[in-house]
Amino acid sequence: MASPSDAPAGASYVATGGEFTRDTDYITTRITADGRDGYPVEAGRYRLIVARACPWANRAIIVRRLLGLEDVLSIGFCGPTHDQRSWTFDLDPGGVDPVLGIPRLRDAYLKRFPDYPKGITVPAIVDVPTGQVVTNDFAQITLDLSTQWSAHHRPGAPQLYPEPLRAEIDEVAKRIYTEVNNGVYRCGFAGSQAAYEAAFDRLFTALDSVSERLSTQRYLVGDTITEADVRLFTTLARFDPVYHGHFKCNRQKLAEMPVLWAYARDLFQTPGFGDTVDFEQIKAHYYIVHSDINPSQIVPKGPDLANWLTPHGREVLGGRPFGDGTPPGPTREGERVPAELLR
Amino acid sequence: MASPSDAPAGASYVATGGEFTRDTDYITTRITADGRDGYPVEAGRYRLIVARACPWANRAIIVRRLLGLEDVLSIGFCGPTHDQRSWTFDLDPGGVDPVLGIPRLRDAYLKRFPDYPKGITVPAIVDVPTGQVVTNDFAQITLDLSTQWSAHHRPGAPQLYPEPLRAEIDEVAKRIYTEVNNGVYRCGFAGSQAAYEAAFDRLFTALDSVSERLSTQRYLVGDTITEADVRLFTTLARFDPVYHGHFKCNRQKLAEMPVLWAYARDLFQTPGFGDTVDFEQIKAHYYIVHSDINPSQIVPKGPDLANWLTPHGREVLGGRPFGDGTPPGPTREGERVPAELLR
Repeated sequence: MASPSDAPAGASYVATGGEFTRDTDYITTRITADGRDGYPVEAGRYRLIVARACPWANRAIIVRRLLGLEDVLSIGFCGPTHDQRSWTFDLDPGGVDPVLGIPRLRDAYLKRFPDYPKGITVPAIVDVPTGQVVTNDFAQITLDLSTQWSAHHRPGAPQLYPEPLRAEIDEVAKRIYTEVNNGVYRCGFAGSQAAYEAAFDRLFTALDSVSERLSTQRYLVGDTITEADVRLFTTLARFDPVYHGHFKCNRQKLAEMPVLWAYARDLFQTPGFGDTVDFEQIKAHYYIVHSDINPSQIVPKGPDLANWLTPHGREVLGGRPFGDGTPPGPTREGERVPAELLR
Repeated sequence: MASPSDAPAGASYVATGGEFTRDTDYITTRITADGRDGYPVEAGRYRLIVARACPWANRAIIVRRLLGLEDVLSIGFCGPTHDQRSWTFDLDPGGVDPVLGIPRLRDAYLKRFPDYPKGITVPAIVDVPTGQVVTNDFAQITLDLSTQWSAHHRPGAPQLYPEPLRAEIDEVAKRIYTEVNNGVYRCGFAGSQAAYEAAFDRLFTALDSVSERLSTQRYLVGDTITEADVRLFTTLARFDPVYHGHFKCNRQKLAEMPVLWAYARDLFQTPGFGDTVDFEQIKAHYYIVHSDINPSQIVPKGPDLANWLTPHGREVLGGRPFGDGTPPGPTREGERVPAELLR
């Protein structure tokens, strides 16, 4: 999640007196096929650092898996909570990432920028030989996995960002970002009743609009899964476990919005989506880290999540999930979600 | 609500380190037909003080209305939030109860017990001539309205505590109290993750059991509405607006538990129940007063409550809501819920 490095568990996330505004100043260096920024695509050179809890990182986990980049771009998992300075590798033996040899993601940021003043965020890609962070620009990372790493895609990898649909994907994704992905945070971190109520109305207006769009088509753009679906999915997966209660996005549960709920289950049951979702880590992250809105840090035991596996009926809308491609194979050993619902 | 007088908005409600235990030491003086405690039943002598927000007070509002005691027992409404010392009459012109002439319910407690050391709670009944509180024993108050005030019941008043069923009502009500009415507070004010999880399991085990009981019978005891139904209803009415999110009672929403949800809507749509429920005051009370679990004091805009008015289908189970009696007439002018869903 794009959370401030200097925001400890116990720090203030709530905006003071008004609307929550996300700091969007990321490290914009790109890893490209032509290496124009000094970081050419190269098998085995980089390491993707994520936290399963984080919706922005979840996008990268999904896209890497859909495209079959596991053998060329390794992955490191931070734990669901982070200390006052950084996401940490507390899930790894000895609390150290086995490839980078560091306990905190912050170390990779400081290796490149000794006075790095901003948030230590996931997802981030680290250059393994130098131990330096390359980028944490989450929106660009997944697009580059699709467009720059294509020489390394698995046979049958889907087109998540196909040329003819890019303008439409960009437009839809932009609205999903401002209104939904970030809209839930605008509710949860509102600094006043008025800012919260405005954020609530804006969020549900957007969800109603997306629901309308999805009532007659299986996916957001075209008839196959694209980057736009990945981006909407990671927010929907967190809706009932976290945003509904913790962020007060409670007009309805996702499970009470029939079109979006069926859409979310359809993706959840598609290889590459639900098998990346760790509801336990998701709940732990939000409820423990945001102690300014949940001082007890008690993590809710609900909701009951078995309903994610119920039939969704979206096949009647047609659509070809992977287009001319194929679904990804089973999740790699060592990358499986501990409490995975789908196993 | 039975909340401590010395617990200001901003005070600590969460139990320290463990299970929440309710202080149940109330003023047990009774108003009886024979006046054995010095307070005989008498038309016009007493004033029932409530807050619509409070589930314990809501019981008394419902029973007084079902029995048609409006003309003999007047009612005063405290606002949904209370200051550090007391529930207050902040909804009344000048912030003073028009009959008792006091700004705070505490004043009536102190008039009788100058050093009253415990919580100022609603419901309470005040002796108007002396301005002294008589009782705040919420469980006894509604039973006495049924059994001691019967000479003043309206024609057609239902039997809420009929002699032949008292043992069964007492047994069911006791379990409803410990497991459900108080069970939600045990979740919300748990002082540790372990205490919360135990409380959560205990609550939903009880709800499953009540649901099972209600799957084949329309009401909890016998085939008519009794005191037991009143007691369960006031907790169910608060479940989705407050307990689901604020108290983390979130295995499912009430609206996702089909039997209980239909049962709750059946009662809600029965005269004397839904027309006493003020969802706005309910949400304001919990989310603003319990600032230790909701420091922002932001009140959720959801859930959408229009679904309380949907058909419940419980008529197929038979039952005679008011037995040989009749439903109460329209709510009195001046006692209507401002934002009443049923109007």
